[in-house]
Amino acid sequence: MAQLSDIEIANQLEAKPITEVAAALGITEEELSLYGKNKAKVDKKLVKEINAGHKGKLILVTAITPTPAGEGKTTTSVGLVDGLSKLNKKAAIALREPSLGPVFGIKGGAAGGGHAQVIPMEEINLHFTGDFHAIGAANNLLAALIDNHIHQGNTLGIDSRQITWKRVVDMNDRQLRHIVNGLQGRVNGVPREDGYDITVASEIMAILCLADNISDLKERLKKIIVAYSFDGNPVTAGGLKAEGAMTALLKEAIQPNLVQTLEHTPAFIHGGPFANIAHGCNSVLATKFALKYTDYAVTEAGFGADLGAEKFIDIKCRMANIQPDAVVLVATIRALKMHGGVVKADLSQENVEAVEKGLPNLERHINNIQEVFGLPVVVAINKFPTDTPEELDVIRNACLRYHVEVALSDVWAKGGEGGTELAEKVVKLAEKPNHFSYVYELEDTIEDKLTKIVQKVYGGSGVTFTKTAKKELNDLKRLGFEQYPICMAKTQYSFSDDASLLGAPENFMVTISNLKVSAGAGFIVALTGNIMTMPGLPKSPASERIDVDGDGNISGLF
Amino acid sequence: MAQLSDIEIANQLEAKPITEVAAALGITEEELSLYGKNKAKVDKKLVKEINAGHKGKLILVTAITPTPAGEGKTTTSVGLVDGLSKLNKKAAIALREPSLGPVFGIKGGAAGGGHAQVIPMEEINLHFTGDFHAIGAANNLLAALIDNHIHQGNTLGIDSRQITWKRVVDMNDRQLRHIVNGLQGRVNGVPREDGYDITVASEIMAILCLADNISDLKERLKKIIVAYSFDGNPVTAGGLKAEGAMTALLKEAIQPNLVQTLEHTPAFIHGGPFANIAHGCNSVLATKFALKYTDYAVTEAGFGADLGAEKFIDIKCRMANIQPDAVVLVATIRALKMHGGVVKADLSQENVEAVEKGLPNLERHINNIQEVFGLPVVVAINKFPTDTPEELDVIRNACLRYHVEVALSDVWAKGGEGGTELAEKVVKLAEKPNHFSYVYELEDTIEDKLTKIVQKVYGGSGVTFTKTAKKELNDLKRLGFEQYPICMAKTQYSFSDDASLLGAPENFMVTISNLKVSAGAGFIVALTGNIMTMPGLPKSPASERIDVDGDGNISGLF
Repeated sequence: MAQLSDIEIANQLEAKPITEVAAALGITEEELSLYGKNKAKVDKKLVKEINAGHKGKLILVTAITPTPAGEGKTTTSVGLVDGLSKLNKKAAIALREPSLGPVFGIKGGAAGGGHAQVIPMEEINLHFTGDFHAIGAANNLLAALIDNHIHQGNTLGIDSRQITWKRVVDMNDRQLRHIVNGLQGRVNGVPREDGYDITVASEIMAILCLADNISDLKERLKKIIVAYSFDGNPVTAGGLKAEGAMTALLKEAIQPNLVQTLEHTPAFIHGGPFANIAHGCNSVLATKFALKYTDYAVTEAGFGADLGAEKFIDIKCRMANIQPDAVVLVATIRALKMHGGVVKADLSQENVEAVEKGLPNLERHINNIQEVFGLPVVVAINKFPTDTPEELDVIRNACLRYHVEVALSDVWAKGGEGGTELAEKVVKLAEKPNHFSYVYELEDTIEDKLTKIVQKVYGGSGVTFTKTAKKELNDLKRLGFEQYPICMAKTQYSFSDDASLLGAPENFMVTISNLKVSAGAGFIVALTGNIMTMPGLPKSPASERIDVDGDGNISGLF
Repeated sequence: MAQLSDIEIANQLEAKPITEVAAALGITEEELSLYGKNKAKVDKKLVKEINAGHKGKLILVTAITPTPAGEGKTTTSVGLVDGLSKLNKKAAIALREPSLGPVFGIKGGAAGGGHAQVIPMEEINLHFTGDFHAIGAANNLLAALIDNHIHQGNTLGIDSRQITWKRVVDMNDRQLRHIVNGLQGRVNGVPREDGYDITVASEIMAILCLADNISDLKERLKKIIVAYSFDGNPVTAGGLKAEGAMTALLKEAIQPNLVQTLEHTPAFIHGGPFANIAHGCNSVLATKFALKYTDYAVTEAGFGADLGAEKFIDIKCRMANIQPDAVVLVATIRALKMHGGVVKADLSQENVEAVEKGLPNLERHINNIQEVFGLPVVVAINKFPTDTPEELDVIRNACLRYHVEVALSDVWAKGGEGGTELAEKVVKLAEKPNHFSYVYELEDTIEDKLTKIVQKVYGGSGVTFTKTAKKELNDLKRLGFEQYPICMAKTQYSFSDDASLLGAPENFMVTISNLKVSAGAGFIVALTGNIMTMPGLPKSPASERIDVDGDGNISGLF
């Protein structure tokens, strides 16, 4: 039997009308805004009342340090929530929305895979309910207002060399990374250096994902720093009177989207900020909806647990006043082999020794979750066809030694049925008492916060600052941002800031190259090296293989 | 009593569920894709079958030469269709969608006004159902693919100085008119001059509005010329294998949107191409839906009848194989006064003589519609509070002399009730036999087509070509585009190409400065002078006055 593609599997199953999925949660048709038959936004009234209470257990899915071998965090999350449903638990998943960039670039939507997917997969991967377009429009309105302000006389004294706000497009388009605009004379703007980011890198994306309601959204938008004046003071979106119109553009986008898994479990898919320059989690609102309307809310955080889980806890949970009850740490035999020194081409061959050699990465993540975050954890082994029983035993035996639960997850092939072992362990784990803790306190100095993250979570010795970062550190203190949480922008491929150091490196320093404030989102971004915020297309873009027939059926979308 | 704003009037009335509006047309809920409670797209199956037959009369609303005084074409169209409903005629309106640019720039959505509006006005004026965002994404994907192709080795030999495809954004952003991109080294693209248009100026907008179905859409997208190679040959979207993914992005956007007027008459609002570099009409599909499901389909064309009606007939009707049964020519006392020499500040004062002096403009439009297009016409006087009985009599008497019907339209103040006189005359007129005719034949040479438009419609003596236009003319002939219809890009403020020549100028030549082909849309754009395809924001943008309260209610949107 030929292996089916994700879209073929998705098309084999009949979706339930989204009104039925909502009804199972206790959300009526009146409380939904339908987008076709299989997508909906929850009504603005429900959004306003969301803080009135929540009851569910929060399950965070995170992973070991990622490798090019892939971990399958989203697939595991979807399979877990379907597994919980199979155990007759009332459960929902909260996930990020995918960006168009990767869809047309290198293979990859972001809606799970195999028999553990959210649907309608094509629509989620294309425009979905228009949230990203709304974010792009709000971002670009603000940009147009900045340049128009300068063009019209610049009463705020904006220094056009110190404009930090970029335009965005939801596309991989390297040609726009560095541009000069405002050319060809005085009626056509003011010449300056500029550049584009991909939409998911917009601070508005991070804001939408952290805002509690429309008023909070507007307040945050108002605080965005777009530039500095000639005398060094921040110029904000509020100073340009932009926040009202921006909020108008975002008033539907802030309402979480409701769809379903292949097995009809409710899925709140909403927001998708970068996992480096932002915090990399779906919206606070989506998580709160899953928590309020079910007993088990499954959600995930971007990259490995050192980056994703840390920011989930120190930024998102802190701002939203929520906390996880249990953590699932996804690992694969293939990834552990890479941490053990095997190159990608050799991953299909059995190599028990390499799995053993990769274990320190797993162990450090387990230790972080238990000892630093103070949370119960279960290791989920995301099964691949090439895994051998001997290799799987290496992880099982290690987990025995670490006194940590482990479950085999076979959800790609079997859907929720392949996730019941994991689901059972999660249910038990979530009942355990925990000693949840942030990595740092907001009152700590910026230097102390950074040092605590590096020493407690990454296992490094400490931080150093470049000359630029030192200057920026002083500026941030002067401007009153010292009490903001930190958003680390570090390579996801290593605990350290050196992508080549796999496994569990020790005795390293992390170099902070830049410190920037996202004043609306409410965090300080600590950059370690160059972070790409506008991807490029490959030589043969995935878009070339996408097609639509005369009946409107899409092919070639993965 | 204080005068209510458009949004206040719109908010006073309860919209019907859009499913009920559709049911009155004979469209079932199954055949709709809902976007919230008051917006829907018609299903792709209905789109595919739309050519199976239509039965209604097609009523075109056009206007005298526009002035800064305003004509109220959309308001009159909405009032007319509500007037038809009041007469118990089954009627629907087909209109263009508004762009975000004017919404945030200078006051102005485009959903009618007063008691003659389409609703939900705020949503129509903001993202609506996402069509313009989809068009922007398809446009910008194609742009990214062009630059990526050059970056990856340029096997097609694209001359980066001859790229005709621009990126777009749905925003007034003069800073982007002229840019240089691809800067900062070989990993960041290839430096070149570039620029942005507003989304409505994208050829994809014109294509979406002329396409009959998804297959036609894809074929047209494939033909788009994006650049010329070093050896002078056109490079197309098809050559970049872009049409499949672009169609995937547009597959919902091609489905017409269904909303309603304040009086619950069905409104198909779909597409909105520029009225200069494109043909300025709503989509062929929207018009066909209105025609198929009702007895009277009211639609409008951009600018005055010299530009809008001519392109409606010679481009849209010809491609869609439809033809109007009657034409409404909108005029206002204020506009005629301006054609008669009065400046804007003095328009509120009675000036019978100026109205008389402005009549030649009205007369030439009437004559064009009757003699050139061969269609029955009624003059609609769009009433303003400052109009005096003596001024109104000037138009009425003139229409008597011209043997043409005239009706007072008071729909801004009274809705459909104020449009019944016009509606009654339209019903009678549409029964009359007509001798419908195009202005030129496709077999005519480009020079002959241009000459016929200028002599027969504009009342000028002929055309001259700049040196550039002559070269481009030869290129178009060489490339095989001679049989395409012409899309005139001329000032809307005069029959001539000189905006200062009001009234009915004579003995002028029209200078063609450029000739460009829109090979996907299927027409040749003849430019007469500079046409602005990226507007700028004013000193105090309308966006500054837009706000949203904590319950999500918008204010300040007009």
